[in-house]
Amino acid sequence: MEQVDTLIHARWLIPVEPDNTVLEHHSLAIKNGRIQAILATDEARRRYQGTVELDLDEHALIPGLINAHTHAAMSLFRGLADDLPLMEWLNNHIWPAEGAWVSPEFVHDGTQLAMAEMLRGGTTCFNDMYFFPDETARAVDAAQMRAAVGMILIDFPTAWASNAQEYIDKGLALHDHYKAHPLINTLFAPHAPYTVSDGPLEHMRMLADQLNIAVHMHVHETAFEVREAENKLGERPLARLEKLGLLTPQLLAVHMTQLSDDEIAACARAGVSVIHCPESNLKLASGFCPVHQLMSAGVNVALGTDGAASNNDLDMFSEMRTAALLAKAVAGDASALPAAAALRMATLNGAKALCIDDDTGSLQPGKSADITAVRLGDIETQPLYHPISQLVYATGRDKVSDVWVAGRHLLKQRALTSLNETELKAKAAAWQQKIRKYD
Amino acid sequence: MEQVDTLIHARWLIPVEPDNTVLEHHSLAIKNGRIQAILATDEARRRYQGTVELDLDEHALIPGLINAHTHAAMSLFRGLADDLPLMEWLNNHIWPAEGAWVSPEFVHDGTQLAMAEMLRGGTTCFNDMYFFPDETARAVDAAQMRAAVGMILIDFPTAWASNAQEYIDKGLALHDHYKAHPLINTLFAPHAPYTVSDGPLEHMRMLADQLNIAVHMHVHETAFEVREAENKLGERPLARLEKLGLLTPQLLAVHMTQLSDDEIAACARAGVSVIHCPESNLKLASGFCPVHQLMSAGVNVALGTDGAASNNDLDMFSEMRTAALLAKAVAGDASALPAAAALRMATLNGAKALCIDDDTGSLQPGKSADITAVRLGDIETQPLYHPISQLVYATGRDKVSDVWVAGRHLLKQRALTSLNETELKAKAAAWQQKIRKYD
Repeated sequence: MEQVDTLIHARWLIPVEPDNTVLEHHSLAIKNGRIQAILATDEARRRYQGTVELDLDEHALIPGLINAHTHAAMSLFRGLADDLPLMEWLNNHIWPAEGAWVSPEFVHDGTQLAMAEMLRGGTTCFNDMYFFPDETARAVDAAQMRAAVGMILIDFPTAWASNAQEYIDKGLALHDHYKAHPLINTLFAPHAPYTVSDGPLEHMRMLADQLNIAVHMHVHETAFEVREAENKLGERPLARLEKLGLLTPQLLAVHMTQLSDDEIAACARAGVSVIHCPESNLKLASGFCPVHQLMSAGVNVALGTDGAASNNDLDMFSEMRTAALLAKAVAGDASALPAAAALRMATLNGAKALCIDDDTGSLQPGKSADITAVRLGDIETQPLYHPISQLVYATGRDKVSDVWVAGRHLLKQRALTSLNETELKAKAAAWQQKIRKYD
Repeated sequence: MEQVDTLIHARWLIPVEPDNTVLEHHSLAIKNGRIQAILATDEARRRYQGTVELDLDEHALIPGLINAHTHAAMSLFRGLADDLPLMEWLNNHIWPAEGAWVSPEFVHDGTQLAMAEMLRGGTTCFNDMYFFPDETARAVDAAQMRAAVGMILIDFPTAWASNAQEYIDKGLALHDHYKAHPLINTLFAPHAPYTVSDGPLEHMRMLADQLNIAVHMHVHETAFEVREAENKLGERPLARLEKLGLLTPQLLAVHMTQLSDDEIAACARAGVSVIHCPESNLKLASGFCPVHQLMSAGVNVALGTDGAASNNDLDMFSEMRTAALLAKAVAGDASALPAAAALRMATLNGAKALCIDDDTGSLQPGKSADITAVRLGDIETQPLYHPISQLVYATGRDKVSDVWVAGRHLLKQRALTSLNETELKAKAAAWQQKIRKYD
């Protein structure tokens, strides 16, 4: 018998690769943070012994969910201002609040709160874009979660940096610092076409190409953005990005609600990844991303929650479900974005977008043990005909029981092990007291 | 000090009437199944003594949610068939399954499972349309939940009845049986314009008018339905219903995704209630109900989950959130359907549609004690700036801790008291075994 660190016996194991596959009564062995083996439980009990052994007999194991676009620290602004027209919301509420409160401490505490929520909801990896990314990375490292941290780039000065060169220099310092980190990547994160001018974008692109770093950007989020670019610059933002050499397989284009057929084809040819954020798009009335059309054209579409101020949760189960429902109505086709594809969107497609799909995004021997266990025995998920359908259409994130990242048991029967829940609630309450007085 | 049956002290009390109101540190006294008083906790502790007294110090009390359209027994078909074009889904999966399995026992067990799920999710009342409504009513009565049970009417024969006259006779017998029941109403439930011909509809309308019974019907659910009516009958279904005298304040028109400006105005003039089922509409690619436009025109819009085979849950928190998000995007206006209006849609508007708003739908002295308590102290709802926003945009149904219907404590710290969870899970598993073999 071979000794492994953790041996999990599950009622169902859904690897995502191969697609639409449900393995019944299967086990997963973890050794040195990686998936050692996946095999039938009968055989697993004969061949392996786990230092830790778990029987999850009403549970499904799935790859940890990947939140491919968020602003984690904005969890501290959850529900601060809602139901307002977009520009009023930004100009009168969000930007003033950020101006008043965003600091290293704010970003550290907000990121911790976000990670606590994400881990409790089965998310093992998130792709972040915010200020003080050094604080974000520090919090991620301490919590032992997986993340892609954005080296934010924006034309105007903020508390983080004063000019394009400083944004880029600080970003590169962060990149160097985490280059060898097994769980933390860095990506360039130029905010949006309307907040970053050509010079900085060109400079960033050269560095991105040289250093093989991906680029994470809000693109074509609203009709207003696209119209303004047409009026002021005579071209749509995607066309401008193409000219700047940014339409590549390293681009993570977030939102993309305004797309012509030609633009969809261009993205498919270029190998761009689209990060779909349905709940944010709906809440801010940004528009409807043509997900079915994008996927039919072969574009990699991943999933994100955006920030907690425009959602207002970081719930990837809900996001996955909303994506699967919305894509059908937008396409006028009830067979669009079926459950297995929605699950893949929330896992492997995110890993592909982040260029870490060798390492995570599906349950495969050799990959990192980034795993989420979900209870399927409660009233809400009875009767159970098709586990993948049930996970997408009828399972809330409260059914998540356990989460592993790189084989570490970060959520153990719904208890966080690398974050202090009591302390986080106290910190959140303290921030709420401070911020509410301001508002 | 006055003795009451139950005295609940809550951190927040959200009565829904008056609108958009949050009462902090307030208490609610229940006596003989009714709300005796709502007052500041300090005063409540001086004036009242409860046989049962509860301190819900991290909780909000809200009116019990009202699921204004469902097919409860279809919980047993949850996830049976998904991601299929509508007609294929109906013709090849749902209708054959119904033909094979729907029986008094099926309806009884399915309704029990549905009620268990609904109570656990804070729903205290549902409006049902299905076969064997006598079994539905019997199950509701035993569980002591509140419901409106549909006297289903359809042209073709089913296991329940053979012809229009029999559907109507059996319906009226049910109506008589439950006439004096404090928690169970009966409504006429002609399935849809394309499944019920003029003769039966006219007969039913006369009875509805004479006996002052409301009418619950799927109307303008899909573009296909409307086009077919235009082609075959030369008029849209709503026009036909108007001619039949059915556009009245007693009409609960479900779905209504295909509406012209004139039709919206006609519904507003007629006082029709629209029952909005966003997740079903999305999942079946039926279309987008113009909710903001309807509400702006003064139409009463309530909320429903539809059946668990096209959702796939009976989760009114999720439905409320989806409605609030979707309405904004459909209207192109991020200020459409704000949180307080979404909460009202899920409570009082449903009561108004069912003509029971004297009795329930808001927390008011004199009304039935139909109450849901929601925990707002967990990580997922921190920080908390605006309780109503938090309930709509960031609260999952798993945060529901307690539910009362007519003052009976039907969910006690998440445990069902009038339904046996273990037994229900066993029954659901038994049905799944039977049905899966068939499929």
